[in-house]
Amino acid sequence: MRTEFEMIESLKHSFNLKRIGDDCAVLPKDAYTDLVVTADMLVEDVDFRLHWATAEQIGHKSLAVSLSDVAAMGGRPMWALVSIAVPDRLWNSGFVDRFFAGWHSIAAEFDVELVGGDISGSPNSLVIDSVVGGEVKKGKAILRSGAKVGDSIYVSGSLGGAAGGLYILESTGNVASLDTEMVLRQLQPSPHVLLANSLVSLYVLSSMVDISDGLSSDLGHICRSSNVGARIYAERIPIDSDLADILDPKSALQKALNGGEDFELLFTSSNPNISLNEQFRITKIGEITERNESVKIVIDGKSCELSSDGFQHF
Amino acid sequence: MRTEFEMIESLKHSFNLKRIGDDCAVLPKDAYTDLVVTADMLVEDVDFRLHWATAEQIGHKSLAVSLSDVAAMGGRPMWALVSIAVPDRLWNSGFVDRFFAGWHSIAAEFDVELVGGDISGSPNSLVIDSVVGGEVKKGKAILRSGAKVGDSIYVSGSLGGAAGGLYILESTGNVASLDTEMVLRQLQPSPHVLLANSLVSLYVLSSMVDISDGLSSDLGHICRSSNVGARIYAERIPIDSDLADILDPKSALQKALNGGEDFELLFTSSNPNISLNEQFRITKIGEITERNESVKIVIDGKSCELSSDGFQHF
Repeated sequence: MRTEFEMIESLKHSFNLKRIGDDCAVLPKDAYTDLVVTADMLVEDVDFRLHWATAEQIGHKSLAVSLSDVAAMGGRPMWALVSIAVPDRLWNSGFVDRFFAGWHSIAAEFDVELVGGDISGSPNSLVIDSVVGGEVKKGKAILRSGAKVGDSIYVSGSLGGAAGGLYILESTGNVASLDTEMVLRQLQPSPHVLLANSLVSLYVLSSMVDISDGLSSDLGHICRSSNVGARIYAERIPIDSDLADILDPKSALQKALNGGEDFELLFTSSNPNISLNEQFRITKIGEITERNESVKIVIDGKSCELSSDGFQHF
Repeated sequence: MRTEFEMIESLKHSFNLKRIGDDCAVLPKDAYTDLVVTADMLVEDVDFRLHWATAEQIGHKSLAVSLSDVAAMGGRPMWALVSIAVPDRLWNSGFVDRFFAGWHSIAAEFDVELVGGDISGSPNSLVIDSVVGGEVKKGKAILRSGAKVGDSIYVSGSLGGAAGGLYILESTGNVASLDTEMVLRQLQPSPHVLLANSLVSLYVLSSMVDISDGLSSDLGHICRSSNVGARIYAERIPIDSDLADILDPKSALQKALNGGEDFELLFTSSNPNISLNEQFRITKIGEITERNESVKIVIDGKSCELSSDGFQHF
């Protein structure tokens, strides 16, 4: 069975799609500016569960994931479209109003205007498609494909918290008493627009993605697109400190590497000393290597292959 | 139960959304150009049925409806995003490849580039969100709100064919032997991009929409947005000639007025003599009146109220 990733690769090849594959497409806007645009589809019981998240949180998250994509290009989000297919059971429950209240709350925070979209009935599932358009200085969008051998690899914030939140939700099945930080990271993530904009104004970055699939997968995306390898160090991974309350150290590291949905920024630069003020934690976790060295993680002095499923030979 | 239209009106009011309500949002691009952008969500068993349409036709239609929205602004489509939630039963059937083959076939015809989107699993229904961005001369997008008292009302092509096709599909339940023009109009509509671009290059139009909901509804949209009334004449409505084969004249007129999905253009102009070459049929069907005269249709010399459900007192 083809994965979604393989399906997209196949379509890129079949139809010669050159702009597909980054967090956003980059399109010419005017003499000084490029337009960046992204779409994210969220499906009930695939990407969220109605008994875990409030309508407001689903509205928040549906916009947050797209804002994070714009941030990962070094862009500033400007406008958005929301299309939503609503099953009958939610139509008269006030769900849609509450969804848009959550959506608008984060939209106001980032000065994003809702300019269009669609509302349809749905026979079964709630489905949301979130589209955000933003701006970036002409030719300055940070792509996945620019990492160079010798570049340092950085990550913002901490990793594994959103996966920890998912683990809590799956273990207990009820969110009412679970207003923990990790659960909130899963249900109501914060996109790092300001952080990304600060980074690109202060430093030259060679590549950037947001960590949506997981550090291991997303670092793989950078390496494939840039035709390079990478080496990261387990002891440098900024594991969410709350994970220690619910998991042993090995499992916590696995969540930090493979959990996904942290929406932290993963980026590379020839500058080996990138840091921001204390509001924004930046950690250097490794370096870009030759392609034939593939993607490795060093654990207790031993180098292991790191795949999108995790690492072998722990 | 609120309709989708009422839901959108409520959201516009709640969140002060000023760019919502036309076929596309209009956003500034550069000194000479505005960006127009539209989203259309198509849901299985709401907007299409898999046993009526081929995967290629669903791909075609999902792009066609958005191209028609760009056309209705007087715009030129440029790029597109497609998000698609695919149930397991279709994942390995080749459906997605055939969907995109149909999509790319019409995209190539209109020189539209696929620049992004999303592919997700879906627990039940196939859901597609089609987003198209286009360009229009700065300040020259044709809105719904510009119709003036005394303007002539025009419609392109013929009406009721798509509804006739739907009637045939619903009556027989099987499409295999039904390759008629009306069925094809329903399953594989042609967006009038070239027609719209010719019109705006030759004439000053005061308002335009594409006929997606039906002539009666869409004329109502123009009148509400422009704060005017309208009078149209039943004998001038260009009813699809094939409808006479399956329906009596009254029913055929009802389909032409209320059927929807013909994706013809409905527009107004102070110019009372708009015509194009014989490739593009244009019919003057009435005139814009004062708001307090509401929307009327004249049938056999008698004036009747025309609502989005049709007309009263036939």
